[in-house]
Amino acid sequence: MTPSQLQTVSEAADDIRRLISQSDLPGASAVLTPLSVPEIVELVDRLGIEDAAIVYRLLAKSRAIDVFEALSPGTRGELVRALRNVEITALFAEMDPDDRVWLLDELPASVAPQLLRGLTRRERELTAGMLGYPQDSIGRRMSPEFVTAHPHLTVAETLTRVRAALDSAETVYTLPVTDSGRRVVGVVSLRDLMSASDDDLVSELMRDAHIADVMEDAEAAARRTTDYGLLAMPVVDSEQRLVGILTIDDAARILKQEESEDAARQGGVEPLRRSYLSTPIRRLVRSRVVWLLVLAVGATLTVQVLDAFEATLAQLTVLALFVPLLIGTGGNTGNQAATTVTRSLALGEVTPRDVMRVLSREVRVGFCLGLLLGTLGFVLAGLIYEWHIGLVIGLTLVAVCTVAASIGGIMPLAARAIKVDPAVFSNPFITTFVDATGLIIYFLIAKAVLGI
Amino acid sequence: MTPSQLQTVSEAADDIRRLISQSDLPGASAVLTPLSVPEIVELVDRLGIEDAAIVYRLLAKSRAIDVFEALSPGTRGELVRALRNVEITALFAEMDPDDRVWLLDELPASVAPQLLRGLTRRERELTAGMLGYPQDSIGRRMSPEFVTAHPHLTVAETLTRVRAALDSAETVYTLPVTDSGRRVVGVVSLRDLMSASDDDLVSELMRDAHIADVMEDAEAAARRTTDYGLLAMPVVDSEQRLVGILTIDDAARILKQEESEDAARQGGVEPLRRSYLSTPIRRLVRSRVVWLLVLAVGATLTVQVLDAFEATLAQLTVLALFVPLLIGTGGNTGNQAATTVTRSLALGEVTPRDVMRVLSREVRVGFCLGLLLGTLGFVLAGLIYEWHIGLVIGLTLVAVCTVAASIGGIMPLAARAIKVDPAVFSNPFITTFVDATGLIIYFLIAKAVLGI
Repeated sequence: MTPSQLQTVSEAADDIRRLISQSDLPGASAVLTPLSVPEIVELVDRLGIEDAAIVYRLLAKSRAIDVFEALSPGTRGELVRALRNVEITALFAEMDPDDRVWLLDELPASVAPQLLRGLTRRERELTAGMLGYPQDSIGRRMSPEFVTAHPHLTVAETLTRVRAALDSAETVYTLPVTDSGRRVVGVVSLRDLMSASDDDLVSELMRDAHIADVMEDAEAAARRTTDYGLLAMPVVDSEQRLVGILTIDDAARILKQEESEDAARQGGVEPLRRSYLSTPIRRLVRSRVVWLLVLAVGATLTVQVLDAFEATLAQLTVLALFVPLLIGTGGNTGNQAATTVTRSLALGEVTPRDVMRVLSREVRVGFCLGLLLGTLGFVLAGLIYEWHIGLVIGLTLVAVCTVAASIGGIMPLAARAIKVDPAVFSNPFITTFVDATGLIIYFLIAKAVLGI
Repeated sequence: MTPSQLQTVSEAADDIRRLISQSDLPGASAVLTPLSVPEIVELVDRLGIEDAAIVYRLLAKSRAIDVFEALSPGTRGELVRALRNVEITALFAEMDPDDRVWLLDELPASVAPQLLRGLTRRERELTAGMLGYPQDSIGRRMSPEFVTAHPHLTVAETLTRVRAALDSAETVYTLPVTDSGRRVVGVVSLRDLMSASDDDLVSELMRDAHIADVMEDAEAAARRTTDYGLLAMPVVDSEQRLVGILTIDDAARILKQEESEDAARQGGVEPLRRSYLSTPIRRLVRSRVVWLLVLAVGATLTVQVLDAFEATLAQLTVLALFVPLLIGTGGNTGNQAATTVTRSLALGEVTPRDVMRVLSREVRVGFCLGLLLGTLGFVLAGLIYEWHIGLVIGLTLVAVCTVAASIGGIMPLAARAIKVDPAVFSNPFITTFVDATGLIIYFLIAKAVLGI
């Protein structure tokens, strides 16, 4: 959105809220008429779900389905809960199979049978087939409606097939080429077909295909599709038989959701189902409170560590002054390592197999950082307080940075190895863990250096 | 990548390293031969830049350009620095204009004139035109090679235009429709052209176009392209004249880079130019040390605050025990708010105009969270230590959570308002800021409640 459009949508949202509260539905309808589909999507993302449902009902039927398909999965789920059964059933019949599966994932399992009953037999079979694949697999996100080419067919024959499928196929711009056993042997682009002669064979034009296994993680398959700039990637079963196709626009949508979830978890928040402004306060609180409680319970470790060293603290209060600085620096160093490794994992650049390589890198990086900060800390604390104190601070920084970088680098790999989202061992989690460790290191060094 | 492929690439990288160190280039070449282009890209991402340059030289010319275009912009820049001038000039001539501009952005400005001289006049003009748009604008990332349709032409005439442009145009699947003044009046898809009759007019088939302004932020334009699942979006100048096209694969590439930069800055790290495993240790240190120093200097604030309250601390050492817990909880609350708002900003869901709305939400969310944690803190600290201490802890948690959520929510908006990347006011930055504020609140409450 350009700024001017945003202003319009924001103002339109205010108008709509006011008109709905005054029960002026014709007025609200008039506000909606000049807006484009993307603008209505934005508008819906700014309204509470009850108002959003009213807006949705005010739309002409042809626009309603376009708006619905452009909404985020979370918003669709919420909206459907606010609609009446008959409205949902009509909507459901209009959707593509992959959108249907996505919607069912957002709804209570009990409504699925009822919605599926409203479909034609073929539609029901396509949708039910996809529901059979595991959650998070690409089998749930692909489209089962594709058009194929065959190696022994001519370009003219293939173009005829394409024309026949224009209405139903998810894409006609990239065609999987399959042999007589439905196995994928390559892909051919419509562009290449158009530039060839009518009697050229597909086998002369086709290229090696990037393929995804239907059980593969949806994010990994989507990442590969966009990384290689493929307009569409064939999805195959364990016998290499074509079962679906993943288009780049669907891949981008999968990645957007995954990135949002990763970003949220990295900050210690549960991902929101809807946009920030349309999420009620109690939902925002709920998305944060569990993490915050877990982290606070973790942080009571620091109270216990300090309690154990209370005698030392009472003897030398000056030690307390540096506690936030030292554990803060440790937390930052750990976060830096975790952020870098988590992102590399998401991009497929490192795997849990690389654990020793990552550890050896992070130990060295952490040690270098610790040496730099430690020297600075030694000089400054030495000048301002005493050289003994400076020595404690300097040595602690070296040790804490090395340990923190190592823990921060290893944690995401450990999470992935035990099949947990690496972003769950998030920065706040690492901070809390490093805090307690850092305090123990600090007081042990202090006792050793100061002889108390 | 499926796990088995990753293993192969990882092993191939080890083999290549060994063979290159033994100067066995024919051996290295034999390892490369069976690998696909994506596998070679992964391999290059695992090697140091010197080894990567050797691998690149070993590739057949036709594969070399494919590999090069699939590399990340950072890796391309590094690789080019490691190649000889004659190699670069040949490579540069083979690239698409948008890839060329992306590469020039990664190289020192002084090499641009030399590289541009190696191009044909037309290629040079296309590339130079793009270089005239501001850094970070979509003008630098679009493709200037497009094929257009016109409203008064028939389908048959348009398809002839498409066939003539198959070799040069960036995409032929979405055609901008322009009037006689080169102004964009709509788009038409190849699919719609194929399903129409030969003598239908384009004006009957075309739809409203989503367009981007050439000066618009590249990330915003890319986000819109993927959000609406557009295969391509026309890019226009201030007079609505078509100047380029943004395809969805390029949009996904822009978003990938932006997401990586955001993720890095959120963790307080400068984004890496290359993959983690191929980045030398000194580069990793450099990507972290500046942030860490800035944050450590910020954290000396906490030392000063504690120093100011040292008398209170010496009088009641038990207060020191809760310092990490309290500031940690404040930091976490601030991070949660900042993470949510930063992501919403990136997705275009909120803008700096929404500042009061965000503030009012975060004050309420923070207060609710503080009330929950504060009650818990009051009871636990009261039971274990004293009820007076419990009261201090409880009240501090309420105040700190409210303040932290507000600061965390506002900071990203403030950054955007002053045109700084919101991710730069990152979580560690907010933590540090909230730490000092939290300590002041803590000791003021302690002094008031305990009367010391």
